[in-house]
Amino acid sequence: MKRLKWSDTPSAERHDALRRPAQQAGDTITAAVLNVVADVRTRGDAAVRELTARFDGVALDAFELDAASIAAAADAITPSLRDAIDDAAERIAHFHGAGMTQPYTVDTAPGVRCERVLRPIRRVGLYVPAGSAPLPSTALMLGVPAQLAGCRDIVLCTPPRKDGTADPAVLYAASRCAVTRVFVLGGAQAIAAMAFGTGSVPKCDKLFGPGNAYVTEAKRQVSMADGGAAIDMPAGPSEVLVIADAGANPAFVAADLLSQAEHGPDSQVILISDDGAMIDAVATAIDEQLRTLPRADTARRALESSRLIEVESLDDAFDISNDYAPEHLILAVREARRWLPRVDAAGSVFLGDWSPEALGDYCSGTNHVLPTSGAARFTGGLNVASFQIAITVQDVAPQGLAAIGPCAVELARAEGLDAHRLAVALRLEALPA
Amino acid sequence: MKRLKWSDTPSAERHDALRRPAQQAGDTITAAVLNVVADVRTRGDAAVRELTARFDGVALDAFELDAASIAAAADAITPSLRDAIDDAAERIAHFHGAGMTQPYTVDTAPGVRCERVLRPIRRVGLYVPAGSAPLPSTALMLGVPAQLAGCRDIVLCTPPRKDGTADPAVLYAASRCAVTRVFVLGGAQAIAAMAFGTGSVPKCDKLFGPGNAYVTEAKRQVSMADGGAAIDMPAGPSEVLVIADAGANPAFVAADLLSQAEHGPDSQVILISDDGAMIDAVATAIDEQLRTLPRADTARRALESSRLIEVESLDDAFDISNDYAPEHLILAVREARRWLPRVDAAGSVFLGDWSPEALGDYCSGTNHVLPTSGAARFTGGLNVASFQIAITVQDVAPQGLAAIGPCAVELARAEGLDAHRLAVALRLEALPA
Ligand SMILES: [Zn+2]
Ligand SMILES: [Zn+2]
Repeated sequence: MKRLKWSDTPSAERHDALRRPAQQAGDTITAAVLNVVADVRTRGDAAVRELTARFDGVALDAFELDAASIAAAADAITPSLRDAIDDAAERIAHFHGAGMTQPYTVDTAPGVRCERVLRPIRRVGLYVPAGSAPLPSTALMLGVPAQLAGCRDIVLCTPPRKDGTADPAVLYAASRCAVTRVFVLGGAQAIAAMAFGTGSVPKCDKLFGPGNAYVTEAKRQVSMADGGAAIDMPAGPSEVLVIADAGANPAFVAADLLSQAEHGPDSQVILISDDGAMIDAVATAIDEQLRTLPRADTARRALESSRLIEVESLDDAFDISNDYAPEHLILAVREARRWLPRVDAAGSVFLGDWSPEALGDYCSGTNHVLPTSGAARFTGGLNVASFQIAITVQDVAPQGLAAIGPCAVELARAEGLDAHRLAVALRLEALPA
Repeated sequence: MKRLKWSDTPSAERHDALRRPAQQAGDTITAAVLNVVADVRTRGDAAVRELTARFDGVALDAFELDAASIAAAADAITPSLRDAIDDAAERIAHFHGAGMTQPYTVDTAPGVRCERVLRPIRRVGLYVPAGSAPLPSTALMLGVPAQLAGCRDIVLCTPPRKDGTADPAVLYAASRCAVTRVFVLGGAQAIAAMAFGTGSVPKCDKLFGPGNAYVTEAKRQVSMADGGAAIDMPAGPSEVLVIADAGANPAFVAADLLSQAEHGPDSQVILISDDGAMIDAVATAIDEQLRTLPRADTARRALESSRLIEVESLDDAFDISNDYAPEHLILAVREARRWLPRVDAAGSVFLGDWSPEALGDYCSGTNHVLPTSGAARFTGGLNVASFQIAITVQDVAPQGLAAIGPCAVELARAEGLDAHRLAVALRLEALPA
């Protein structure tokens, strides 16, 4: 991990010091995904079958799971994992349900009723990856808000295992949140199938969920394509930024940094502290913990592009963090809540020593699909509104038209839009006496 | 206008019958915009000056307006236009203010406090076009929600007039909603300047507002570029779909269709009715009204790709509308409110004979920046949340960690993420007795 003192870092170099590892899909990936997407769009299920055989090494005739095999998943996992999934689902539903966008009505003038009504997106497609391991938590993070939004058609794709089945923990999580149809289908071909539809996979209006570079590139491509599908958000490698003061627990901080680093070699972890000794202690604890970690190789590679930054004051730390806009921000500082107002941009914030980021990944109740790559400067994470359409409505009575019609006429005239003016003027003339 | 009977239209042809005119920027536009964006990004103000001279025919040294010239705009417009802008701004603020996302706090377990806090996006860039005419209403639709969101830096660009000044109505509207800095700068060069920053134009985090094909393409490009800016939504040509029953007023319906058609030659307008005689009467009224319209040529070209559709029942009309997902939907039917639950996808809905779409464009209070090109299948229009970041927070006490930590440990184990497990397990072991 590169260590630097902020006050010794020339301002010209500060921006580069916080630069994220290159996130653009390489030309090879872009081209490969272009082919997959075009193939699935043109040849549908035949393409999906061939691509699955090639990339997943599984020959499947049909990809959809029937209700019985989904229901059977509950008995294929341990009771303690089932309980953990149930618990997590309940807390996620609790938190997400409490923050739902509400319909409302306002009379902006007598006889001018304006409203916002909400509709679920008709058909959503969830992608649950299974790269290094299947991710039942992701099925919950996507499925619970989709269910709360009232989506009628919830399609889920997850890659096949070598024997052509899907991970039972993912299936159990899916069954907990009213997923309507499950397909054992992964990679760019799953994204293309949900975006354009095939004989067996229904076309979805919006796609959700994380994935590897191929999946991410496929989501980008189908979101740009005419007749494609919307996507949840631009997804980059995962990140954490920890601000620690002299009172922090170095072992806790090290574990938090490592739990982000183990996500992938392109993950980025940053520690900022106003205490040089704390940085030393965390670095030592990282070395120790790395020795026992199964995914130490991945974590080590991620740590290469990571930073330990010493600042003169916590205020400086928050300035740096706000510029960086991390996906996860851990405030391992005394009186963490007192510092919360200083956070301008971050995906999810973890206050104090007892709030490890891993809780947010699994079961605090918040969503773990969060803005990466600095997108927290302009957007928040996944929530129920991500699965809904807010429609505005105006219901104008003759009295209302009389009240605000002249205002519209005046503005239409100023903008040289005569048909607009006429649409109001005609009605003003026709008003019942 | 092409007229068709839905029941006589083979299902294979129905999709094509509702296809929107091609919306992709042509290769020429894409290439031209790529050059402009790269030039502004590399050479900053020097490029902006040259491009403004070339495209707007105006030689300007500086682009920013000082406070005095913005304040002077109030006296350069008529009192009635000033009043109309004031009225519209108030109703927009009234409606938007009432529907703002709220922060909230939930204890998802004893000692596990989860929250959503809101932050304004730090610096937003508003684009107010002045193609055929300047659009003060657009300045309000962008500026009022930005102000309600609490954005500290609100930058606005609007194209220069031939004498290098900006339209006073736009300036007056901007001054009404706390816009911080105004630049007389238009086209792709304005978008690039706000996305990347120049010596004089500050770099913005998110860009908002409509524009011509060059502006739209520039927004697309900067939103994809590394280090660029986010954008509000994909913007296509404007659209209206009217559902009219036998009791509708043909002149009103014709005026509503024309007021959408006059926006541009690529606008699309669709009328659906269960009454053939109503369709005839509307067609006749369109011909009549066209005779007196200043922008009749534009409207005529838009009408070429428009449709009059006769259906057997209003239910069919709503099915078609939901598939099309129009930006504006006018329900010129008896008991319009009774039909509202049938609307699944639309940007903004206008109920009954006295709710012309022009009111929504200007002053009902709703926003006129709405999803086009079918994007209403998955997103709503601009609102205060578009200018905010929702950040989740977790504040976990030792007691809370004890309650939900084991759940996280179980899930981390199932997902093979050992550092995640460790980050929780270490703390569970260290819990104060
Ligand atoms: Zn994690
Ligand atoms: Zn309009």
